[in-house]
Amino acid sequence: MYRSKNCGELRLKDVGQKITLSGWIQKSRDLGGLTFTDVRDRYGITQLVFNMDENPELCEKARRLGREFVIQASGTVRERSSKNASRSTGDIEIEVNELTVLNESKVPPFTIEDETDGGDDLRMKYRYLDLRRTPLQQNIIFRSKLALETRKYLDSQDFVEVETPFLIKSTPEGARDFVVPSRLNQGQFYALPQSPQTFKPTLMLGGLDKHFQILKCFRDEDLRADRQPEFTQIDCEMSFVHIEDILNTFEGLAKHLFKTTLQIELPDFPRMSYDEALEKYGSDKPDLRFGMAFTELNEQAKGKDFSVFDQAEIIVGFVAEGIAETYSNKDMKDLTEWVQRPQIGAKGLVYIKWMDDDSIKSTIGKFYNDDTLKSWFALMGGKKGDVIFIMSGETDKTRKQLNELRLEMGKKLNLIKPGYFKPLWVIDFPLLEWDEESGRFHAMHHPFTSPKKEDIPRMLNGDHETMKNLRADAYDLVINGSEIGGGSIRIHDRALQSRNFDLLGFTKEEAEYQFGFLMGAFEYGAPPHGGIAFGFDRLCAVMNGQSSIRDFIAFPKNNQGRDMMIDAPSLIHEQQLIESGIKLADPKK
Amino acid sequence: MYRSKNCGELRLKDVGQKITLSGWIQKSRDLGGLTFTDVRDRYGITQLVFNMDENPELCEKARRLGREFVIQASGTVRERSSKNASRSTGDIEIEVNELTVLNESKVPPFTIEDETDGGDDLRMKYRYLDLRRTPLQQNIIFRSKLALETRKYLDSQDFVEVETPFLIKSTPEGARDFVVPSRLNQGQFYALPQSPQTFKPTLMLGGLDKHFQILKCFRDEDLRADRQPEFTQIDCEMSFVHIEDILNTFEGLAKHLFKTTLQIELPDFPRMSYDEALEKYGSDKPDLRFGMAFTELNEQAKGKDFSVFDQAEIIVGFVAEGIAETYSNKDMKDLTEWVQRPQIGAKGLVYIKWMDDDSIKSTIGKFYNDDTLKSWFALMGGKKGDVIFIMSGETDKTRKQLNELRLEMGKKLNLIKPGYFKPLWVIDFPLLEWDEESGRFHAMHHPFTSPKKEDIPRMLNGDHETMKNLRADAYDLVINGSEIGGGSIRIHDRALQSRNFDLLGFTKEEAEYQFGFLMGAFEYGAPPHGGIAFGFDRLCAVMNGQSSIRDFIAFPKNNQGRDMMIDAPSLIHEQQLIESGIKLADPKK
Repeated sequence: MYRSKNCGELRLKDVGQKITLSGWIQKSRDLGGLTFTDVRDRYGITQLVFNMDENPELCEKARRLGREFVIQASGTVRERSSKNASRSTGDIEIEVNELTVLNESKVPPFTIEDETDGGDDLRMKYRYLDLRRTPLQQNIIFRSKLALETRKYLDSQDFVEVETPFLIKSTPEGARDFVVPSRLNQGQFYALPQSPQTFKPTLMLGGLDKHFQILKCFRDEDLRADRQPEFTQIDCEMSFVHIEDILNTFEGLAKHLFKTTLQIELPDFPRMSYDEALEKYGSDKPDLRFGMAFTELNEQAKGKDFSVFDQAEIIVGFVAEGIAETYSNKDMKDLTEWVQRPQIGAKGLVYIKWMDDDSIKSTIGKFYNDDTLKSWFALMGGKKGDVIFIMSGETDKTRKQLNELRLEMGKKLNLIKPGYFKPLWVIDFPLLEWDEESGRFHAMHHPFTSPKKEDIPRMLNGDHETMKNLRADAYDLVINGSEIGGGSIRIHDRALQSRNFDLLGFTKEEAEYQFGFLMGAFEYGAPPHGGIAFGFDRLCAVMNGQSSIRDFIAFPKNNQGRDMMIDAPSLIHEQQLIESGIKLADPKK
Repeated sequence: MYRSKNCGELRLKDVGQKITLSGWIQKSRDLGGLTFTDVRDRYGITQLVFNMDENPELCEKARRLGREFVIQASGTVRERSSKNASRSTGDIEIEVNELTVLNESKVPPFTIEDETDGGDDLRMKYRYLDLRRTPLQQNIIFRSKLALETRKYLDSQDFVEVETPFLIKSTPEGARDFVVPSRLNQGQFYALPQSPQTFKPTLMLGGLDKHFQILKCFRDEDLRADRQPEFTQIDCEMSFVHIEDILNTFEGLAKHLFKTTLQIELPDFPRMSYDEALEKYGSDKPDLRFGMAFTELNEQAKGKDFSVFDQAEIIVGFVAEGIAETYSNKDMKDLTEWVQRPQIGAKGLVYIKWMDDDSIKSTIGKFYNDDTLKSWFALMGGKKGDVIFIMSGETDKTRKQLNELRLEMGKKLNLIKPGYFKPLWVIDFPLLEWDEESGRFHAMHHPFTSPKKEDIPRMLNGDHETMKNLRADAYDLVINGSEIGGGSIRIHDRALQSRNFDLLGFTKEEAEYQFGFLMGAFEYGAPPHGGIAFGFDRLCAVMNGQSSIRDFIAFPKNNQGRDMMIDAPSLIHEQQLIESGIKLADPKK
């Protein structure tokens, strides 16, 4: 037996017990007569004491312990004279009478503490040491608990977890596939799944009417910060359901997860149409943790000889509370420069301050008198002491730019309380997106997404312009401004699917080539169905108020797609190439 | 709302209720005035009734329903006049007043019934139809439940589920890797994991002292029946443990799974050494559901002028009860021919019958008198009416051949009761296997497997012959003659690991090349640890008394590694090859 207790569980009530602990040396303090050594495992840290007077040999041995040595120590629990309130075991210590070094350790390349001195690259290379740090370990343990609670909830709702294959077929749509040469079928390739999207409807056809899976998916994209070539999804599909059934089921899942892992009871989730989200927040994933919703001012602001506004497609702004006196001209100039950076690309920023002395200070005072501007405050829900920010220009761009400013002001004004969650269903997405460049429609979600029932007649008979305004039974779950999941009800009617393919510009042959297997399968009694998928890595991060998914993945890859710890990808043997039926395009490499 | 109830839940107590069902048409019987239609979903089958007198239009509509049409039917639950006891809903039927065809279906290529008329290939191609069959659906649902219960149990034991990467590094040992060309690192390749064996110790180094995962693994082997290129494992690793801790923890898991999914309380598992398993059953995975253990007869049978026995390294047999009178000479001849087939390759089969009239009939009566042969019955636990089967020759081969005969007799004599489970830990495997051909030792489990503590001094100082007899802290879980799982305690001591590499014939450079990353990592305080992995597909099959794992995999591949449903692997676009930095070795393909 290597241990009778772990390093996180001993308390005052255990004083007098003979126990054995195992773990890693966190640090040692040699105070001459006494040596204090902290031993750490996954559960916590416990202080060991060695007494030079009572057992000089053992104390000498303890003094030779280096950081991260693995030890086993037996002794008696006793009350500490100087307690450590910041540690759960801080009331006790162990008077050691037996010490075994189970393994030595080289000096680690960075400190194994909550705040480490290791840089990203070093921490990725020595991930096994980074994982010893409590914050990372807690993230990984949280992830495990979140996955289990997901499964428990979905099981309670009669969902069946079905594993779908990883060696599948490459499909020309979507992102780039990772491909896998087949040795037994030379010249042919498997692809790793970007999602189980072929198999989810297939399982619905198979009658497994509630299906889910927590699985790895793969996308060979150029990696941006916080994108991973392999990532984890919760993928779900249900038969014989309307949109309400799906939203209720998965709102239930989200509530269950927050309750069981964070002890937070979420109220019912508000719902907002895609159009409203763009109008009010300039984003299809608005962060509702703070206000500053947009108001459009076209009616109020046009025709007053201010040519910038007169030429704009949209004039839109929001109110920032209580900063009229505190935000200096310099602050306003900085903000203006911030929105003018190429990443945001705004032409400028109009502000209107309503000062405490009732005066108005504004960059557009020339064109609008104070009473007019005060009436804008009234319209927009502002008051004395507040500031209105306004942008103008082409609608889509301007809303996006103002959204960036809103998020920035939310941060600057500390409006985002930690541990506060604002979930939201965004619904009624457009069915089709018109792409000017290619002169054709694209599916906003995917080509099997169903239009809303009330839009079907317009879809079957409408003109080109009508098609731009069709709404889909598609939905996203947004939490704190992050898209956590999304999905749609699928078309199960053949005529409607055919019309959709027509609208998307597929010939019969193209549709057959790209979707042939599914279209064939759908002829054997496809039930009405719909689904949703959640980004599991992102969900973990958002629930912990963190922005990086990397710290919730045990072994992430870097921005070049490399696993720095095991040094993959790597060269392979010539024999492996031969067996796979492939050659390197550039054999010098 | 598509349905208010499912097709498996209505009972007599529901009579009079207005309900709505959705599902697939199983079959229809048109009895003139009445039409009976069975509608099926995942939960069961319910009978619908349409009455020509009361609602001719609806009845006509019902008559046009084909097999596998998807329908929605509303009506009233009523008691059936002729009940169907073989069906859970057999006491009721639905008097339908509203019928909607949600989707039509082509006639399926095979019948969707428990016993289908579809062959293997057809069922694989139309897997989504095969999945509608209750037996397959129940298998998949069982699998889902088994995975959930595995997770619940391991969670209750403080295990953390950690996902390890799928895009890893190709390693030269073990089976053939599936490789994945890297676009961002041209000329380099990822490999898909054959197991998470690099990451399990890494997580132990990271302090996550109890880790598990249910994950897909990949092996590019020539496929035999019932081998799959992708398969699922339960992979577990624990730190600060001895072998007892592992066996107890996972015996607990197995008991929990049998109890929660099959309602079977298993008694404590017996343990048997590898040597004993071979001596008594000629196999390291003995089927203990029946007896017929082996007895060696070298002492008794040698030196009696029977040259076959005199020249044999081993003479070994078992008793088959009560068949002396029923097994004819012809039966014995058939059995002899059966063991002489090339698949088994025995030279011959000796039998001794103790007849009811107390006479002995035997193929070796010339060399041994009746009293001698009766004394063998006494020694082997046989009696009048029984038969002794004996084989002789080189020890390993002979035991294997006799094992085959034992298993065959177990089947022939119906000794294997369905629903009966006999788990067993096989322990004390040899550490090293001597390979005559290459003239070197191989690791029986893997190169990090620890010898048993009491064998360490012999390992460090012993001669060549001693090395052949070293035992490992390795273990297999065997149920009903199938190896369900296996693992070992790992070496965490550097000197011992170095000695093991020496014995395995690795130079320092080779060891560094093959295991460099892990050896480097182990220098930073590796804890004592060990693990186990279970074949999840096999576990599902064995727990259901079935021999094929395919029927527990939603989308299996055939013996050529093809997914016949989606037709993968397949050709890919030239552009994908270029982006992956590879060319086909034979571009004609």
